[in-house]
Amino acid sequence: MASPKKIRLHFNEVAMRDGLQNERRFVPTEDKIALIDRLSTLGYARIEATAFVSPAAIPALQDAEAVMRGIRRRPGVIYTVLVPNLRGAHRAMQSQADEFNLFMSASETHNLANVRMTREQSLAQITEVARLASEGSIPVNVSLSTSFGCPMEGDIGEAEVLAWVKRFADLGVQGVSLCDTTGMAYPDQVRSLCGKAIQAHPSLNFTAHFHDTRAMGLVNALAAAESGIRTFDASLGGLGGCPYAPGASGNVAMEDLVHMFACTGYDSGMDLAGLIEAARQLEPLVGHGLSSQLPRAGLRLTKHAPPAGLEEIRARAQAKASQAPRL
Amino acid sequence: MASPKKIRLHFNEVAMRDGLQNERRFVPTEDKIALIDRLSTLGYARIEATAFVSPAAIPALQDAEAVMRGIRRRPGVIYTVLVPNLRGAHRAMQSQADEFNLFMSASETHNLANVRMTREQSLAQITEVARLASEGSIPVNVSLSTSFGCPMEGDIGEAEVLAWVKRFADLGVQGVSLCDTTGMAYPDQVRSLCGKAIQAHPSLNFTAHFHDTRAMGLVNALAAAESGIRTFDASLGGLGGCPYAPGASGNVAMEDLVHMFACTGYDSGMDLAGLIEAARQLEPLVGHGLSSQLPRAGLRLTKHAPPAGLEEIRARAQAKASQAPRL
Repeated sequence: MASPKKIRLHFNEVAMRDGLQNERRFVPTEDKIALIDRLSTLGYARIEATAFVSPAAIPALQDAEAVMRGIRRRPGVIYTVLVPNLRGAHRAMQSQADEFNLFMSASETHNLANVRMTREQSLAQITEVARLASEGSIPVNVSLSTSFGCPMEGDIGEAEVLAWVKRFADLGVQGVSLCDTTGMAYPDQVRSLCGKAIQAHPSLNFTAHFHDTRAMGLVNALAAAESGIRTFDASLGGLGGCPYAPGASGNVAMEDLVHMFACTGYDSGMDLAGLIEAARQLEPLVGHGLSSQLPRAGLRLTKHAPPAGLEEIRARAQAKASQAPRL
Repeated sequence: MASPKKIRLHFNEVAMRDGLQNERRFVPTEDKIALIDRLSTLGYARIEATAFVSPAAIPALQDAEAVMRGIRRRPGVIYTVLVPNLRGAHRAMQSQADEFNLFMSASETHNLANVRMTREQSLAQITEVARLASEGSIPVNVSLSTSFGCPMEGDIGEAEVLAWVKRFADLGVQGVSLCDTTGMAYPDQVRSLCGKAIQAHPSLNFTAHFHDTRAMGLVNALAAAESGIRTFDASLGGLGGCPYAPGASGNVAMEDLVHMFACTGYDSGMDLAGLIEAARQLEPLVGHGLSSQLPRAGLRLTKHAPPAGLEEIRARAQAKASQAPRL
């Protein structure tokens, strides 16, 4: 593998929230807890443990309180939770979440479709929740969906995306995630937007969140790292689909992403073999195959057994070679 | 999309040979011919139409002569064929193939496992076939498998790979494909090997051939283009698996690759919408789903319909917004 670039990257696991909320099968609470506890040992910066949303709206995450109560908090890991509104924020505080992940879309149409509010209404809500979090000394991250394009509106102007980032920064939040919600990002765009965002707000922690819907998830992640992004969302096993393209890939797979960065000489700080094992454990929980490659293929230098009879083949070939050459 | 870099790339379709040879279901000769004829209109530099191998060894391609006889040759498209030995070369000449694609592995173990010959024996055979081709004024490309690593031996030294390239160049061949047979390549390695190969042999046409076995196919292709590679193998729909990792991805999907390069501002010269249509036509022929993303997701700016009732949602949200603001 390449000589380390000595640049440390940080990874946020989103399978337990972003992944599971799209699953038909309810994963039992004790299985969620066991998996989060396992993931906690693998080197993550953050694990998005659940969402404090309406149980009626997202039954898959109806056990948010029980999950937060059941997990073993490992020092150094930030257990973040998705918070849609003040009500969710109060629940999240009672569950002692380490961080709130708030969200809205850069696209007006996507925001309306997703949360039935205008973007200004979402910002007002984010402002309320951020104020509450600040009173409780809880760090806030805002995930800005459709930062690289909207499946209904098309491209969102870079200046518009950056203006939203500035409004979050003005609220005093700690982090902003630039989210490619439906896999529309491409490398030049990623370099430009991420570079400008970091330059404008050097003290904000920016996270890049890519989807593999158009097969460019890893390409974009590498471009983002080259532009100075140091924190990445991804999903174990690539869990989570794309609601706008049935059957298409959703989240970038964590193990494939970490493997790429390890090959490329970044310091991921992650237990890659442990990740692959955890992904294999995830598959029976959700009851279907996963889109990630590493659990099937292994690390790039994982040796595969030669075919049966190779030594005989070699001996026969060498015997022929020792006869008069044909040329 | 990014402003065009004005660098023209060239694409070789390998689904009809590399893809089909791994399929269980025999694709009828007339369907192969119809698909090749369709692909011929889409802007390809080359279509690898078939292989002149033993019909007993690879029944999927037992109709090589009939395919070559049946297709309509479109001017400008090179109809290349895989040729394993002198016998195949004679058959390919009789079928008026435009180019021979010869092959061997950079790894001794992989070469033995694949063709039951030592690498020196393979080179002797390549030498014989290249001489015959030269007499018939037929261009020759050599595909060097495992150039970026062997699933059984691990990494193959860069100097060793470059030494094989030099031996092909010394034979007077026109092209060399650096093949990542089992998806072990990573970007820094790709930049280094491709850069050195091009520098050492500026008049050889180098092709990069990547597999997506570890999800890095597109990452590596972009790195190769940045290193000066201008010709890429890929497979419509990502057809073709990885024999060393059952269920894992094989060839990079042509439509995903071309889409990435189009997004990145390269000039692909390809009909991307036509490619997606052709991939959708391929699926029923092989009788299973394909691994490519674009046929499901569409181009990055393909618009998706907003959810039903969006205008009502918008009106209701705006009515609320016009009331006293909550903050």
